[in-house]
Amino acid sequence: MALLTREAKGVFAISPTPFDEEGAVDFDSLGRLVDFYESAGVTGITLLGQLGEAPKLSHHEATRIVGNVLQRTRLPVVVGVSAPGYAAMRALTGDVMAAGAAGVMVAPPNTLRTDDRIVAYYEGVADALGDSVPLVLQDYPLSFSVVMSPSVIARIARAVPSCVMLKHEDWPGLEKISALRNFEADGEMPRISILCGNGGLFLDFEAERGADGAMTGYCFPEMLVDVVGHAAAGRIEESHDIFDAHLPLLRYEQQPGVGLAVRKYVMKRRGLLASDAQRLPRSMLSSRARAEIDLLLTRLGRQDSRVELVG
Amino acid sequence: MALLTREAKGVFAISPTPFDEEGAVDFDSLGRLVDFYESAGVTGITLLGQLGEAPKLSHHEATRIVGNVLQRTRLPVVVGVSAPGYAAMRALTGDVMAAGAAGVMVAPPNTLRTDDRIVAYYEGVADALGDSVPLVLQDYPLSFSVVMSPSVIARIARAVPSCVMLKHEDWPGLEKISALRNFEADGEMPRISILCGNGGLFLDFEAERGADGAMTGYCFPEMLVDVVGHAAAGRIEESHDIFDAHLPLLRYEQQPGVGLAVRKYVMKRRGLLASDAQRLPRSMLSSRARAEIDLLLTRLGRQDSRVELVG
Amino acid sequence: MALLTREAKGVFAISPTPFDEEGAVDFDSLGRLVDFYESAGVTGITLLGQLGEAPKLSHHEATRIVGNVLQRTRLPVVVGVSAPGYAAMRALTGDVMAAGAAGVMVAPPNTLRTDDRIVAYYEGVADALGDSVPLVLQDYPLSFSVVMSPSVIARIARAVPSCVMLKHEDWPGLEKISALRNFEADGEMPRISILCGNGGLFLDFEAERGADGAMTGYCFPEMLVDVVGHAAAGRIEESHDIFDAHLPLLRYEQQPGVGLAVRKYVMKRRGLLASDAQRLPRSMLSSRARAEIDLLLTRLGRQDSRVELVG
Amino acid sequence: MALLTREAKGVFAISPTPFDEEGAVDFDSLGRLVDFYESAGVTGITLLGQLGEAPKLSHHEATRIVGNVLQRTRLPVVVGVSAPGYAAMRALTGDVMAAGAAGVMVAPPNTLRTDDRIVAYYEGVADALGDSVPLVLQDYPLSFSVVMSPSVIARIARAVPSCVMLKHEDWPGLEKISALRNFEADGEMPRISILCGNGGLFLDFEAERGADGAMTGYCFPEMLVDVVGHAAAGRIEESHDIFDAHLPLLRYEQQPGVGLAVRKYVMKRRGLLASDAQRLPRSMLSSRARAEIDLLLTRLGRQDSRVELVG
Repeated sequence: MALLTREAKGVFAISPTPFDEEGAVDFDSLGRLVDFYESAGVTGITLLGQLGEAPKLSHHEATRIVGNVLQRTRLPVVVGVSAPGYAAMRALTGDVMAAGAAGVMVAPPNTLRTDDRIVAYYEGVADALGDSVPLVLQDYPLSFSVVMSPSVIARIARAVPSCVMLKHEDWPGLEKISALRNFEADGEMPRISILCGNGGLFLDFEAERGADGAMTGYCFPEMLVDVVGHAAAGRIEESHDIFDAHLPLLRYEQQPGVGLAVRKYVMKRRGLLASDAQRLPRSMLSSRARAEIDLLLTRLGRQDSRVELVG
Repeated sequence: MALLTREAKGVFAISPTPFDEEGAVDFDSLGRLVDFYESAGVTGITLLGQLGEAPKLSHHEATRIVGNVLQRTRLPVVVGVSAPGYAAMRALTGDVMAAGAAGVMVAPPNTLRTDDRIVAYYEGVADALGDSVPLVLQDYPLSFSVVMSPSVIARIARAVPSCVMLKHEDWPGLEKISALRNFEADGEMPRISILCGNGGLFLDFEAERGADGAMTGYCFPEMLVDVVGHAAAGRIEESHDIFDAHLPLLRYEQQPGVGLAVRKYVMKRRGLLASDAQRLPRSMLSSRARAEIDLLLTRLGRQDSRVELVG
Repeated sequence: MALLTREAKGVFAISPTPFDEEGAVDFDSLGRLVDFYESAGVTGITLLGQLGEAPKLSHHEATRIVGNVLQRTRLPVVVGVSAPGYAAMRALTGDVMAAGAAGVMVAPPNTLRTDDRIVAYYEGVADALGDSVPLVLQDYPLSFSVVMSPSVIARIARAVPSCVMLKHEDWPGLEKISALRNFEADGEMPRISILCGNGGLFLDFEAERGADGAMTGYCFPEMLVDVVGHAAAGRIEESHDIFDAHLPLLRYEQQPGVGLAVRKYVMKRRGLLASDAQRLPRSMLSSRARAEIDLLLTRLGRQDSRVELVG
Repeated sequence: MALLTREAKGVFAISPTPFDEEGAVDFDSLGRLVDFYESAGVTGITLLGQLGEAPKLSHHEATRIVGNVLQRTRLPVVVGVSAPGYAAMRALTGDVMAAGAAGVMVAPPNTLRTDDRIVAYYEGVADALGDSVPLVLQDYPLSFSVVMSPSVIARIARAVPSCVMLKHEDWPGLEKISALRNFEADGEMPRISILCGNGGLFLDFEAERGADGAMTGYCFPEMLVDVVGHAAAGRIEESHDIFDAHLPLLRYEQQPGVGLAVRKYVMKRRGLLASDAQRLPRSMLSSRARAEIDLLLTRLGRQDSRVELVG
């Protein structure tokens, strides 16, 4: 299968991991999700991210999920392989690349500080994984407590040729995109694909700043596809119109801790997941919170006809 | 002047501190801001909060700003008096209460950990300030790194009778409001006023969860007033309609670090501030960012006729 | 094999995980270490702690290490089973308890905040592991960023009957020991065993404050055994004499990040480890640092005749 | 009075701020402290550091303390001027330099992240204070949460000519000293004076690694003077002998939070301070803790004849 490249564009949907009520991986729902992502127009799928509950999976479960998805779709699949040790990272990478993944994503350990150590960490990752494995750099300070300046990303991009993509979820992050594109224009770093996270909370402007798209798990990836498409075509007002319609729900989903519960609940209401169960420990939605989401869905449905709910 | 009570409701606008281009306090703009807040229908004003650049003011400047505002308005005024030592906190409190402030607000020091120490810290504050000074507890984990559970807030409310208000800006925070109101209903804590911050990012639902209103600095306090009013009257759809219209801009203003620059820029464009200058060190807006805000204002103007801009 | 009890005393040596130069687990050195710990007079062994590089081991390696040690010694063995999800924690616990471990140790996830959530987390752990598995609560704020007050430990001790031991490594921590023993005397919590960590940096006074001993990995566990023994017998001066002799080296070993490298280097020089290799990523010693350790060993050897070095 | 230079050596004693039981600054004790520091052989004095309770002083008190000390001694005096805003920093700097201070010390704000922003922050400081004011860079990650790599210190040293000294208290920090001295030897940065903090916990080796001395507040500065002197003269064993004798007490004093209470208690017992009072909020010593310190002093007195106690 094709490897991830510096030219990657569009929307990589970050898939949650479906579980049944007993906590087992629900492969039926996973298959349904993959089919849904394809029909929604995404250009790739990301598995085993933070919100995929990856740290709660065994190595065996993780590789089985990846294998399952790779058998169902021809879309490029990026797999999160972050681990405390390079050995475990290499083992999982070897398995998923052999199964056909397009690349792997690595988040920094939350104790990493100073530009020099951040660069050294990713040089070590590339040494461990080998030059031929496309690498996605995950830049998510709110979650990982590691802050990367544009210049440290440029250093990594120069030092690690296999690093072809930035998963950008700094907050605020708009100036960072501009700074990186300026670095590229000035020849200070090679071009990398920039896909934005953070649930898409700033995707309207990120797309206009030069991002190549989104890599995030918002429960209506159709909107992400719309915004990236409109922005690429210069349809600014249309881009903001559809974005703004979704923003009240998107903002609700983007709450730390409870966000995954919101996402799974909506995906269950959309008929994609049989259950919104999470593995323990977890955050849960109160009945009040579910009613709030229902209200947001009802209001969204008046503006976006794709909101069809079950149950 | 009347003191702050447990029954306080509505919107307390958090005022930025206007500076001129040389960094001096701009009292003309400050007066204009106060008049504007009154005309916008707020029920109180908060001075010297984090976004009021309070830590960058001298004691003399701080008391002069408070005196100035108190001479101009009969609205209740809350003053931020957070300080590393109780002595400085007491000195500023004495000055502003003598000048007619309605109460003071105290944020926790960012190294405070464990329920016991949080409660002890606020007991010490009340000891230092005296029982007769109404106290606002500021709960803002994203900024202060101090997380307060509902039960620790209940303990403070029981242990510190002068604590009459919570400035609520936990994120996520909806369940916290419900939990506190349940504690009150169960007699586990006395009633306190709950005014919500975070720029108002969840005010639509916070008002429905039982919050008494907002205490925040969003650049269109008119919207905050609308939402609190609609919610109090049970006009749910109207509340969400006006909230959703402002959400794209509100979300842009709510970015950490750069948010104050956005707020001051909009207030300058609204003719309220003569300059959007901040004291150093500061975050600045790029021309690109200003264009993005202009776009958001233009789009907002189509839905809210109160968007009138100058310059 | 006997289970861990609330009456546990003495020194539980935290074993590093020996690796060979290629990064494979070195079971020969592991066996030698176990024999050494027995001869040094420890009363238990702890495996797979933070400094045992546990996060860098696969599940299979972890269980093999535990099985190996359990076959070699009749000392009680505590196993670190911390994991992001309860499912993985339960799986490893089941395996090691079936193999004969005396109990398991669980550190809090580094995002845990507020007393209520800390208590709920350990209630969840006990639910997941079952009541019959003795649990060691690991309280190490410097490493985990989670601060536990004496009262939250008391709440856990009351709510979780299987929690029989505290691995105490708060800093400062002396008053905490006194507070916990006072709680026990007042009937506010059941007795728990308190074994101290932090490399033993305050063991001289901790033992006098009422701790039952040490659970740490200092490279000369003989000293820890001496101090605990002297303190239990009221030989205060003797306790401080041997402690003070080791303090210069102990302090050097207790440096964050590089400490494990110091420990493995000394254990190699003592003939216990064939190699001081760590799995990647790791901290390394410069030649200058090794010379400093050699100087400390030479100076220590003048006061403690047990310092015999090889290589 | 002479300004601080890149060649500064020896021991700069960080003075606590003496208060009486009512919380007023005790200028008698301050004078006694200054005389004591001179007699102990220090080469400079540092005022208004973190452990000088500087954040709890008013601007007026701070300048009065500095003026008082400058009238009493001809030793160079460094003054901590850290503040949230550059304006306040400049105001205090102007006052103390006019009064005869030798230089000022600035700690980074605790939210500062990434090499670029750290460098920009200190460039801004130098802009605000002016080129002629010697600047001490305070590098204390444990307290300020800001980690500076050797290369970022080198960048600051190149970019800010007035930065003549590093107050080094990273932990671990030995390799950092070697790295900086190597940078200097390679011409990658100008020479700066390196004085070590952290209570002196690694001063024995820091002096051998190339540090110019110590800037810290250990309650027996005589020992710091000894170690720096022995190391400069190549008397390695003598240096370690006196250091090791003090290490048990030094380690006890170096506990976070409670350390200042220990220091003031010992200084009171040495007859230097009339009271060990701190301004609120504060950490206090239990009677048990005081007994532990007394034991350490007794034991130290057997090895260092300068331990003479009163009260």
